[in-house]
Amino acid sequence: MPAYNAFYGQSGGVTPVINASAAGVIQTARQYPAQINKVYVGENGILGALTENLIDSSLETDSDIEALKHTPSGAFGSCRYKLKSLEEHKPEYERLIEVFKAHDIRYFFYNGGGDSQDTAHKVSQLSETMNYPITCIGVPKTIDNDLPFTDCSPGFASVAKYVAVSILEASLDVASMSATSTKVFVMEVMGRHAGWIAAAAGLAASDNHDLGPDIILFPEIDFQQQAFLDKVNATIERKGHCCIVVSEGVKTPDGKFLSDSGIKDAFGHAQLGGVAPVVADLIKQADGHKCHWAVCDYLQRAARHIGAAVDVEHAYALGKAAVEFAVQGENAIMPTIVRTSDNPYRWEIGKAPLADVANVEEMMPSKYISNDGFFITPECKTYLQPLIEGEDYPPYKHGLPDYVILKKHKVEKRTPEFILS
Amino acid sequence: MPAYNAFYGQSGGVTPVINASAAGVIQTARQYPAQINKVYVGENGILGALTENLIDSSLETDSDIEALKHTPSGAFGSCRYKLKSLEEHKPEYERLIEVFKAHDIRYFFYNGGGDSQDTAHKVSQLSETMNYPITCIGVPKTIDNDLPFTDCSPGFASVAKYVAVSILEASLDVASMSATSTKVFVMEVMGRHAGWIAAAAGLAASDNHDLGPDIILFPEIDFQQQAFLDKVNATIERKGHCCIVVSEGVKTPDGKFLSDSGIKDAFGHAQLGGVAPVVADLIKQADGHKCHWAVCDYLQRAARHIGAAVDVEHAYALGKAAVEFAVQGENAIMPTIVRTSDNPYRWEIGKAPLADVANVEEMMPSKYISNDGFFITPECKTYLQPLIEGEDYPPYKHGLPDYVILKKHKVEKRTPEFILS
Repeated sequence: MPAYNAFYGQSGGVTPVINASAAGVIQTARQYPAQINKVYVGENGILGALTENLIDSSLETDSDIEALKHTPSGAFGSCRYKLKSLEEHKPEYERLIEVFKAHDIRYFFYNGGGDSQDTAHKVSQLSETMNYPITCIGVPKTIDNDLPFTDCSPGFASVAKYVAVSILEASLDVASMSATSTKVFVMEVMGRHAGWIAAAAGLAASDNHDLGPDIILFPEIDFQQQAFLDKVNATIERKGHCCIVVSEGVKTPDGKFLSDSGIKDAFGHAQLGGVAPVVADLIKQADGHKCHWAVCDYLQRAARHIGAAVDVEHAYALGKAAVEFAVQGENAIMPTIVRTSDNPYRWEIGKAPLADVANVEEMMPSKYISNDGFFITPECKTYLQPLIEGEDYPPYKHGLPDYVILKKHKVEKRTPEFILS
Repeated sequence: MPAYNAFYGQSGGVTPVINASAAGVIQTARQYPAQINKVYVGENGILGALTENLIDSSLETDSDIEALKHTPSGAFGSCRYKLKSLEEHKPEYERLIEVFKAHDIRYFFYNGGGDSQDTAHKVSQLSETMNYPITCIGVPKTIDNDLPFTDCSPGFASVAKYVAVSILEASLDVASMSATSTKVFVMEVMGRHAGWIAAAAGLAASDNHDLGPDIILFPEIDFQQQAFLDKVNATIERKGHCCIVVSEGVKTPDGKFLSDSGIKDAFGHAQLGGVAPVVADLIKQADGHKCHWAVCDYLQRAARHIGAAVDVEHAYALGKAAVEFAVQGENAIMPTIVRTSDNPYRWEIGKAPLADVANVEEMMPSKYISNDGFFITPECKTYLQPLIEGEDYPPYKHGLPDYVILKKHKVEKRTPEFILS
């Protein structure tokens, strides 16, 4: 069997550990020279394939590829771009085959969340639909932790750790100040549809709730304003202050995002985004408490400086497994994490068909949310706890993490220019 | 000479390392039993003295006091409370003396920023003004870095490191996404009057400005909207995206906070605070770029998980020096950090009179801000760089920093209740 080249792409919102998966793919592919020649990486994911902007990973040094394990973001560029169906957009599929043929690409590894696994699934069907032989394996990734079939999604655990550490620290701060100053702190985290990230903040709560968040607002639970304000006041009454973690996706009972609740600027423009200031303002207007608020935004999903060791291991192992599955002749699957024990945490690699993974969102199960809707259950803690164990610090240089910037040498183009529609 | 007790208090906004100063005071005092008996700590700073809520630090274990070195926030509670002048408020001074006498307190260590050093200064005058013999030493602390006479203020360097690390990481994230998504990222940091924290973000910028912030907005520089928007667009033109760090204290040329620029909620209430969303909205409205924004708020000043090693050393050394100065018979001074070399960074302990320190704010010198007003100069980098060197990680337990919660046993009250006016 002659060796063919492989395509690898990073897709969707980036994470602290997606580059560890890239390292897993690239380093493992180098161990199978009889099957895989070079790994060409798409600049900005599938866009790099469509526009023939391919980065030759074989021209990166071994140490730079190794450094991907501790570098956040998508080192090769990511994209938010979803392939339409073959019926709707045949020219894009023909273009992919044109580029794959021109560069002897017969392996396709796509690293992303639900939408990206849908793209991977469509590519995996090219053998059947367009008669082009390709082996396609998805590599899971999303901080939202909403991919099905896998114990967790790489990227989530590091964000979980960041969020739990941050609210733990902020809760100590508020406790110090509450006698004469701030009584309420609100921290906004990501998760437009699923509350996994917000839930992770609950790991910072001590058993007696002296530390960490007192209230968590999930997108899965309709926001009940008076019950919420009552809980804030009861918490302040009990301990002098209150810490709240709110998911960006929290909705009011009428189905609107709470962040959209009518805030306009001086010119009447729509609100600026951000649910934390809305929540803080509600509390201030209702009960006059002094509030502070933070919006983590990209900081949470780029925070490799506080990466979770388990997360880095998962991300690398899944990239590695993708290549191993491919050389074993598997196709149209995504490797997964299978949990075999909670404590001590043990896991192994499994697999799921891309057809079943694509476009499925795994929400928080109701058993993970407390009856009053404002916290996580002990069962949820049992699930989350092992994921944040262990610290995987990057090396530092001049006081800052020594993140790698790749050389990204382009593969010479061999096809005519293709204009994206 | 008989041994007297000492009072120690934490005051003002807390920091990642103010507890390291507490450890320096308490551990050092234990080395001078002939002069200092016990260290009583005010619960919530000077309020603890006025209300006779004193915590007996001698009842904390050695290991818990040691753990203060890696615990953020004010472990004994802080306060925002400034003593008025003796003329205005003599009863408070009489009350302080009543409590000091009742508990044999003849040493007063006060850990805070400019306002708190003013309080320390007033207490230091009690010997003269009220004929009560007290030795008073200030211990500097403020993330704002605006205390005079000291190379830097403990707390600042850790916040500087957090801010530089965060914008470095976020800039990698935005670079990954900018082809098809976010073009602009805005990160808001603290610093209502002085731009030191915002300036520190500049340490994350590579020489060619591929990484880190592209634009920094300082409170010292009037916000010039068109010049700013032009620079944003030129940056996007050059590299595809733009990262901005904005100090909460940025003002428009008419002297108003930019964060106050007319944003109202649906009910016509005043704005919710936060200059990052205002800046992001300006860019979006003017040029249509997709923006993301983050507000660090308390996360930045509680982030002991990424504490700067130099900062922890400074904070401890200054607490230690305060006690040593006191037992040497000094009074009414604040120990300072004196820089003797930039690279390698070398420093020693100096001192400054409280009378000169109180209420002075040290702004960014103009030589530290680039001519266009949007970045720091190489000279500023030379000043800032050594402060963020070195990582001082806290120990972890179950995936989270193992911060200490003290027992805080109260000293038995010996005086009648005092009602704060």
